[in-house]
Amino acid sequence: MAKKPVIGVLGGGQLGRMLIEAAGPLGIEVVVLDEENCPARQINVNSKHVTGSFKDPEKVRELARRVDVLTVEIEHVNTEVLEEIATKGVDVDGRMKKVQVHPSWETIRLIQDKYLQKEFFHNNGLPVAAQIALQSGAAMKDDLRKAGESLGFPFMLKARKGSYDGRGNFKVDSEGDFEQAIAEMGKLSLYAEKFLPFKQELAVMVLRTEDDEGKLRNVHAYPAVETIHEESICTKVFYPPRKTSQKVCDKARQAAADVIRGLKGRGVFAVEMFVLADDSVVVNEVAPRPHNSGHYTIEAVPYMSQYKAQLYAILDVVPPSIKLQPRVSGAIMLNILGGAKENSHDTLVDLTQSLYHDDMDVFLHLYGKASKPGRKIGHITATSCSPDTDLEQLAAPLTRAVDRMRQERINAASAQLRPDAPATSQASTALTSSSRDTKTPLVVVTMGSDSDLHVLKGAFEVLEKFRVPYDFTITSAHRTPHLMSELAKSAAGRGIRVLIAAAGGAAALPGMLASETTVPVIGVPVKATHLDGVDSLHSIVQMPRGCPVATVGINNSTNAALLAVRILGTSDAGYRQAMADYIQGMCDEVVHKAARLSEIGWKAYLEKK
Amino acid sequence: MAKKPVIGVLGGGQLGRMLIEAAGPLGIEVVVLDEENCPARQINVNSKHVTGSFKDPEKVRELARRVDVLTVEIEHVNTEVLEEIATKGVDVDGRMKKVQVHPSWETIRLIQDKYLQKEFFHNNGLPVAAQIALQSGAAMKDDLRKAGESLGFPFMLKARKGSYDGRGNFKVDSEGDFEQAIAEMGKLSLYAEKFLPFKQELAVMVLRTEDDEGKLRNVHAYPAVETIHEESICTKVFYPPRKTSQKVCDKARQAAADVIRGLKGRGVFAVEMFVLADDSVVVNEVAPRPHNSGHYTIEAVPYMSQYKAQLYAILDVVPPSIKLQPRVSGAIMLNILGGAKENSHDTLVDLTQSLYHDDMDVFLHLYGKASKPGRKIGHITATSCSPDTDLEQLAAPLTRAVDRMRQERINAASAQLRPDAPATSQASTALTSSSRDTKTPLVVVTMGSDSDLHVLKGAFEVLEKFRVPYDFTITSAHRTPHLMSELAKSAAGRGIRVLIAAAGGAAALPGMLASETTVPVIGVPVKATHLDGVDSLHSIVQMPRGCPVATVGINNSTNAALLAVRILGTSDAGYRQAMADYIQGMCDEVVHKAARLSEIGWKAYLEKK
Repeated sequence: MAKKPVIGVLGGGQLGRMLIEAAGPLGIEVVVLDEENCPARQINVNSKHVTGSFKDPEKVRELARRVDVLTVEIEHVNTEVLEEIATKGVDVDGRMKKVQVHPSWETIRLIQDKYLQKEFFHNNGLPVAAQIALQSGAAMKDDLRKAGESLGFPFMLKARKGSYDGRGNFKVDSEGDFEQAIAEMGKLSLYAEKFLPFKQELAVMVLRTEDDEGKLRNVHAYPAVETIHEESICTKVFYPPRKTSQKVCDKARQAAADVIRGLKGRGVFAVEMFVLADDSVVVNEVAPRPHNSGHYTIEAVPYMSQYKAQLYAILDVVPPSIKLQPRVSGAIMLNILGGAKENSHDTLVDLTQSLYHDDMDVFLHLYGKASKPGRKIGHITATSCSPDTDLEQLAAPLTRAVDRMRQERINAASAQLRPDAPATSQASTALTSSSRDTKTPLVVVTMGSDSDLHVLKGAFEVLEKFRVPYDFTITSAHRTPHLMSELAKSAAGRGIRVLIAAAGGAAALPGMLASETTVPVIGVPVKATHLDGVDSLHSIVQMPRGCPVATVGINNSTNAALLAVRILGTSDAGYRQAMADYIQGMCDEVVHKAARLSEIGWKAYLEKK
Repeated sequence: MAKKPVIGVLGGGQLGRMLIEAAGPLGIEVVVLDEENCPARQINVNSKHVTGSFKDPEKVRELARRVDVLTVEIEHVNTEVLEEIATKGVDVDGRMKKVQVHPSWETIRLIQDKYLQKEFFHNNGLPVAAQIALQSGAAMKDDLRKAGESLGFPFMLKARKGSYDGRGNFKVDSEGDFEQAIAEMGKLSLYAEKFLPFKQELAVMVLRTEDDEGKLRNVHAYPAVETIHEESICTKVFYPPRKTSQKVCDKARQAAADVIRGLKGRGVFAVEMFVLADDSVVVNEVAPRPHNSGHYTIEAVPYMSQYKAQLYAILDVVPPSIKLQPRVSGAIMLNILGGAKENSHDTLVDLTQSLYHDDMDVFLHLYGKASKPGRKIGHITATSCSPDTDLEQLAAPLTRAVDRMRQERINAASAQLRPDAPATSQASTALTSSSRDTKTPLVVVTMGSDSDLHVLKGAFEVLEKFRVPYDFTITSAHRTPHLMSELAKSAAGRGIRVLIAAAGGAAALPGMLASETTVPVIGVPVKATHLDGVDSLHSIVQMPRGCPVATVGINNSTNAALLAVRILGTSDAGYRQAMADYIQGMCDEVVHKAARLSEIGWKAYLEKK
């Protein structure tokens, strides 16, 4: 190696910081353009740092003067100045100095426009959702109508540029949503995208190398991981993806490699994908940089984490035969988002210290950021070395703690919105703001006939109150035995944790479902035309030994749903806490009534009632 | 966790730097007392840093004012000021603030005096070499004589304080060495130590925890590693130790835990040990801090490297049930010592980038230090995940490169000592300055009779020229068959790579050795009283199929030794290069002679000769 190239990075957040953590021991010099106390600069003393905004073209030029190659930790940068620097160079004492930009400014520009990005993939024969660009202004409403006709309802309305962490997305269920959609997003450049009900989200990090003439050397893909989004933010990553066949994982890995092969420049790229019901894989979007879904590689692929890979790609020293094969059998990445209080995450940090198990290694990464609610301030990776380890089980205390923080954060936010309401009220036990449409359902509610629907209103209300992702359908034991059987058999594999089945009369549905699934089935006896519902009750509750149905009271679907939440709570601290809050709320209500009764006496009380 | 304790560290070299690398993601604040641009401060922006020498008591007090607990990255510190801070506190605006010191100042003080340290271990029933404290001044010579009588010759003369990396050690072979010993070390406080011919050096890192009252919680030992010292500096570490039984490793691990149990304070400690011929383990010395022999834990025990362990111990958050079990099947640590030129190590850095193998992971650690010959500027760890991997073989290119750097460094130093000699002359191909006494021999020279000794002079000269660690003995095939057999059978296990055997007459020795070992045997036929040595030659060379002896010319022990160096060179780039230089030297010599012949003509040449 002659003179060692110096790398300049636009942005000094956690991605820049972890890049520098990787660069330090490798003796690779990194210079940051960002504010003085940004995460990356806290761990890198370098007089070449440029203080300012990475969106300021003059600052970018100044950075370029001080380094040999530029890279980014965020794609929302000014590609005009990057193009200028890469093609014309930057003025240094009257001489134009050429500075490489990786990944290519062309790639960054393409990716900045999500519509163009996906058009490009589509034109390269890669699977993406159907999409239509929309006109802004007065013509938008008409375009929305056309989109609805062409794509069907619901469809997604998305901002072409500047969106991240789920911002700039709007689900259009019907024409009735047009006004609100235009009001919320009408000033942005938009496109409509076919709504794809996916069963899982996967992501693959890809390492792309090319020579100085821009000729592709190689693409190397890391394995696929499962990503979980809550409030549209990636919060959890599972390697390997849970309940996913190797075939689907390999398909995703291959698709991701194909996507990145067609782009330009060196570096790592994240490819986010949907897995549909038929196991087909659809590319959602690409990030031209290290990515949250690749944090796990720090420990899982220690010899070539996504950060080391980014550095090696930029310096063009990636061994061509490298395989990006994890050295662990499993990994779970949990984001630490700032909690309700500034020190909410202390509990979690303490837990990473005290939680020890021979078969699980826990790694904490804090980013040196002040905590704000919902802000990404760190992450935890748990790994296991033995394929026999149930890592999800071992890591459950961490998951619960993260979920608990999230719930407290949401509680606090909702209390702030309604300052008169107590923070622990039932109404504020909302667990997630994501709609049931975009989440894998945890609960499926089914009924033998649409005539049972009115009975299930209570269940739906509870599920929505607790923000349980759920789905519902009609499966008659006697009229659609095949559909019923399919639902039962596929439930566990789909990640469904509870089935609620309502049926009346000779109510075979709950028991028949229970006989074909391992998932707990809750039966709601519906009061049908005869016998006041006792026929239904007995048909459901009197199951033979070996095949239980959790039966609730006649027409009491509310209790069915509350029971479902309790079942979810056995493995999810968030739901458990929400249920505790709910119970406390009921208690408070009674206490309040008792106090009132004591205060005003039984006569006045009866009168007021 | 309430307020998070801030850790102050005396010294900001590579150990401090790696401590900070571990602390950063854990959100643990570390403040450094050392010079401004020291390795640790390059990666840690903190306005609390104290600039100055960690030997300056006032600077140590200033550090103490800014932190909650003090630790050290080096034991050569002022323990008086640490005692003062730990017992009386440090003045902050007229108020005395107590600051914890870990490990205890008492432990650091004990360890600073190697004689007292070992007396302490001895009094605790731990195995150490016999030792005698010496008076200084006029009485020393008399004391040396007594030491010789009591311990036998040779014995080691050692400085009680301030020595590291082998400095302050002197081997006393006989009374004839007294004058030189006194001249070199007479001004130091010294002790004499029984010379123990060890076959291997092992080291064990131990993590010690105690509560705030100084009551021991636990000692947790990492596994034993083999350490290789060259020029008395630890240069290579092997996990697991090579050719060492699990029993010996476990004994060392246990002994190390016992040693550290008896000390005071929290933190990690290195215990360096000798393994003697009878597999007994003797404690050599202790370092009260992270240690070179523990660098491998960064990758091998990623969930609790020695640095994370040091932080966790100091903060008293070590999970009590923790096991320090490597997640890799093998690890080799190679120190990067500054080479002959400032950029000599660039080749090695490049090699860490290009060297890829599916079964070996390579990790580079540079410390941000300017390179000076022999200075520790970084290290490389190679790990393997599969127990079937021959890691030593896979890592051989790295080992060779490190050895090559070392050889160039020694060449350059020796050329500097004799500026008239060309750097590549034969005389400067010295590979090591360590004496044959303190190294495991690679070559053993044996002879059938002391009457063969004069023939072996050439071999000894070559082995010394190439600085090959060697040993020699007499083993007669016909008079000491048992000893001969023992030598042959133990050779491979002792790490001996070549046997040279000289014999005359009915010269059975080389062939008999070859029949009981896998190590290559070189036979030197000695011209005995009859037949001009042809009897010896035939006896040696005419071995039956299956049992070869590498036979050299009659009485040509020089070639036997050169052949041995070539054999060593097949797996050691240093020897290979030295041999190349030697061959080049021979070539240069002939070319020079040819030029001279051509210049002055054959007649003048013959006359001059």
